[in-house]
Amino acid sequence: MNEFALQCPAPAAPDRVQLAHGGGGRLTAQLIERVFLPAFANPALRVLHDGAVLETPGARLAFTTDSFVVSPLEFPGGNIGHLAVCGTVNDLAMCGARPLWLSAGFILEEGLPFDVLERVVASMRDAAREAGVAIVTGDTKVVDHGKGDGMFINTAGIGTVVAPTAISPRAVQEGDVVLVSGDLGCHGIAVLSVREGLEFEAPVESDVAPLWPAVEALLGAGVEIHCLRDLTRGGLATALNEIATASGLGITIEESAVPHAPSVRAACELLGLDPLYLANEGRFAAFLPECDLERALATLRACAVSQGAVAIGRVSGASARVDLRTVIGSLRVLDLLSGEQLPRIC
Amino acid sequence: MNEFALQCPAPAAPDRVQLAHGGGGRLTAQLIERVFLPAFANPALRVLHDGAVLETPGARLAFTTDSFVVSPLEFPGGNIGHLAVCGTVNDLAMCGARPLWLSAGFILEEGLPFDVLERVVASMRDAAREAGVAIVTGDTKVVDHGKGDGMFINTAGIGTVVAPTAISPRAVQEGDVVLVSGDLGCHGIAVLSVREGLEFEAPVESDVAPLWPAVEALLGAGVEIHCLRDLTRGGLATALNEIATASGLGITIEESAVPHAPSVRAACELLGLDPLYLANEGRFAAFLPECDLERALATLRACAVSQGAVAIGRVSGASARVDLRTVIGSLRVLDLLSGEQLPRIC
Repeated sequence: MNEFALQCPAPAAPDRVQLAHGGGGRLTAQLIERVFLPAFANPALRVLHDGAVLETPGARLAFTTDSFVVSPLEFPGGNIGHLAVCGTVNDLAMCGARPLWLSAGFILEEGLPFDVLERVVASMRDAAREAGVAIVTGDTKVVDHGKGDGMFINTAGIGTVVAPTAISPRAVQEGDVVLVSGDLGCHGIAVLSVREGLEFEAPVESDVAPLWPAVEALLGAGVEIHCLRDLTRGGLATALNEIATASGLGITIEESAVPHAPSVRAACELLGLDPLYLANEGRFAAFLPECDLERALATLRACAVSQGAVAIGRVSGASARVDLRTVIGSLRVLDLLSGEQLPRIC
Repeated sequence: MNEFALQCPAPAAPDRVQLAHGGGGRLTAQLIERVFLPAFANPALRVLHDGAVLETPGARLAFTTDSFVVSPLEFPGGNIGHLAVCGTVNDLAMCGARPLWLSAGFILEEGLPFDVLERVVASMRDAAREAGVAIVTGDTKVVDHGKGDGMFINTAGIGTVVAPTAISPRAVQEGDVVLVSGDLGCHGIAVLSVREGLEFEAPVESDVAPLWPAVEALLGAGVEIHCLRDLTRGGLATALNEIATASGLGITIEESAVPHAPSVRAACELLGLDPLYLANEGRFAAFLPECDLERALATLRACAVSQGAVAIGRVSGASARVDLRTVIGSLRVLDLLSGEQLPRIC
């Protein structure tokens, strides 16, 4: 009340879950604030970061979970199995934690072809090897035909925090530079291209990849990292909004500096999509002091997964808002979407 | 080839996932052996226990996961939220670990009424409080109407192992006594009663409850615990078969000693169900040396959740098989079911 009403002038059923509640945008944030945070209130959850940091005797651990419901299950450059491993490994990396162990929970729909399951599991095996994690515990459930959609996968992950200082939206400071680890939007367009049967001249492949090697390199180079965020559901714009809200600081980014592959730009123009909201599964944003920028860029560009790293903006003041300086020099507010442009992208 | 064919003389599509692959019986075991174990091979997974035990500097941790797809979402004595917390807490307890932290991953179906979600989340909050765990990280996805079934929940859990020796099927020894913590089958009958619209004279409520208090009491009393197993999907018979297989030892139980509420027995007779395969969500079996039996029973009976504890049998030799001594004195082999009597029970 009623932001909700303002966003959806004539909601069909405001007392029911809508697709947009899962889109990572405003309705997801409202769902978390309204239902989950009050019920599960505890300090680790309240940080609203990609994972929880837990103190145990002798080690600081990061703990995180993600469910994957991408449709279709397979797309150019990957499948739901790659996503399920990389997504959770990357959430740990965003906490400054070396990923160590994963759990895997499968919800299979009756009738799923075994060869699809086997391809997905093989991708999980390969992605886990690449990321240096072991899948140590799991669970399988089967639901009746028509009560699922092929398969859903949940992974939870544990890592050891190796970053010397807390990496968190709350550590962001005025004057920090913002950089991204590469060109944005490939995952979103890759999934969309299969879903909608689109063909582009240059096929767009998902960027799905484990990000820990890039984060480990930054830490190894002694870069003072204030905040990291992988740019999944809702893309760059949503991630920056979450960080602006959590830190209470404003962020200004330069539209001309945000990298997109030409094929992604072309697809967005054709389809009327804003590339700043497109999902990525192998890209992250980093916030760090300006004095460390050159070292950070050089370090990231030496890693395969982040060779396209560039600075795109800076933390600019106490507005808790994200501004985009457009290519013609004007400023526009980059807000959360009510829903998401592409549901079920991960 | 081809036990599979023997079990299903005319399978409609042997190259597709069937409901029975999720039942916890023979097909589930085959799925794990055929698909998951070869791909994810590592020592922690290979133990095939309820959770993985992980060595970190300063602590031994237990890590486990479960997805919950119970239908209907609410049933006498609980709902999917109780199950999601207790199921994972209990898997940790079965590793001799004090449950500490949970993750929660929600897959919601578009159109789910918010009041159902709120009741489920409130139950998770209450169950987490009762079990002494914090839900520290989470994730929410929404799938289109018709691509889910109200809601599915995954929880993963971390606990610290406090048992002084490894609690595992491999620690079971010839001569061990087998006991169960209370009467069996209430959860299965409670869910079935709603699903099938059955009414019994005495309504049967699910036994769903956190089991750590009972395990903690056993450890506190100095009982030497060899193995613990909660008796969920597939019930007592399935759990004992898994332990017989993993330990390579035979188990003989006395039919007359296995406790069932009269209403559960009556429902089973009416419906043609075998109560030994009914699911429980607040009952476990324990394997321990005979010299500790009396102390174990006295300790368990002093805990609310295990006040109905009784001895039901013993580990009898190197047959890797479960035998049931019937009330008329004959022996019958208690085998794994191909599927499960009641799909989607948890």
